[in-house]
Amino acid sequence: MNYPQGTRGIRQQNKTRRNNRASYSNRGMTLEEDINVTNLYYLEKAKANIHKKPTPIQIVNVRYPRRSAAVITEAYFQAKATTDYNGIYRGKYIDFEAKETNNTTSFPFSNVQVHQIEHMRSVQNLGGISFLIVRFTSLNETFYYPIENLLTHWDKMHKGGRKSLPYKQIKEEGYKIPFTYHARVDYLPIIDQLYFS
Amino acid sequence: MNYPQGTRGIRQQNKTRRNNRASYSNRGMTLEEDINVTNLYYLEKAKANIHKKPTPIQIVNVRYPRRSAAVITEAYFQAKATTDYNGIYRGKYIDFEAKETNNTTSFPFSNVQVHQIEHMRSVQNLGGISFLIVRFTSLNETFYYPIENLLTHWDKMHKGGRKSLPYKQIKEEGYKIPFTYHARVDYLPIIDQLYFS
Repeated sequence: MNYPQGTRGIRQQNKTRRNNRASYSNRGMTLEEDINVTNLYYLEKAKANIHKKPTPIQIVNVRYPRRSAAVITEAYFQAKATTDYNGIYRGKYIDFEAKETNNTTSFPFSNVQVHQIEHMRSVQNLGGISFLIVRFTSLNETFYYPIENLLTHWDKMHKGGRKSLPYKQIKEEGYKIPFTYHARVDYLPIIDQLYFS
Repeated sequence: MNYPQGTRGIRQQNKTRRNNRASYSNRGMTLEEDINVTNLYYLEKAKANIHKKPTPIQIVNVRYPRRSAAVITEAYFQAKATTDYNGIYRGKYIDFEAKETNNTTSFPFSNVQVHQIEHMRSVQNLGGISFLIVRFTSLNETFYYPIENLLTHWDKMHKGGRKSLPYKQIKEEGYKIPFTYHARVDYLPIIDQLYFS
């Protein structure tokens, strides 16, 4: 097969990376890295324009050394007000949170913050497409979990229900996201199925 | 009139702020502050969910003092890959850049970066709603400038055309954004008019 130079470069890098890691782990890249690579692929193919939002940081001190770039010398991480990823697909607003867990039997709700859930609820109410991507790292399985189910179980928890989502339930109510070479977390076909078919 | 406590508080703060500033400037808040207040108002009214993206920062060193929050001790500003604001309105993806200029006769294209324009072009191609908000600070006028016109004149510039957008042209092709008390840059009604009527 012929690949353009760029793709061969990335292919080679990934191969090297995978080989380097093979001795101590088969997991490959983190979920965040996989989603970033996927989003870049979608962008290059002009299918979608979805980005990870930068981490919000409160800057306290900046130095301006002569002839060089400004250096931030004191800053603090701020709490996120929203989710990790947003962007556009087929004209629609897309907004999601992505989480990994080492747990093999359930996804603890403690992994998600209340303001993230409320942000996703707001997106849903405004007609956007919101969801959770959950990876069970040890099982090497990644799921698209719909916002409707997430909100239902979250609200139940606040009335005394379970503090986690069982793996079985995520498997039943969610959609397993296939791993393909270019789109390592190929979530757009699931959106096609749920919202555009 | 009766306002809820929260609103009265903000009202009072703004009043104080305006009075404090009155001695050296009548301009009030910056465009960014005005847009943030407007977006907060839209969010509270459940009309739209639109946020300023955090500034991307490359973190080089972090210290973890005992019993206190992590301190970033070396970091650098990174170039923005996209625009300043994005979010959702009426199910649609919204993405825009906002710029102020002290210039009274034109808006220089040098205020906008090539990757910001290309990002907006991509959003437009994917069916989203993208535009430029320009404030002529000295004239105290703020305009919604449509993406179609922006791309046309940008592309002309790269074929040897003007390196700026004349104020007169922005006034003709754009839409003056009204200033209202709660929505200081009330741009949603213009989107209604252009995309939903």
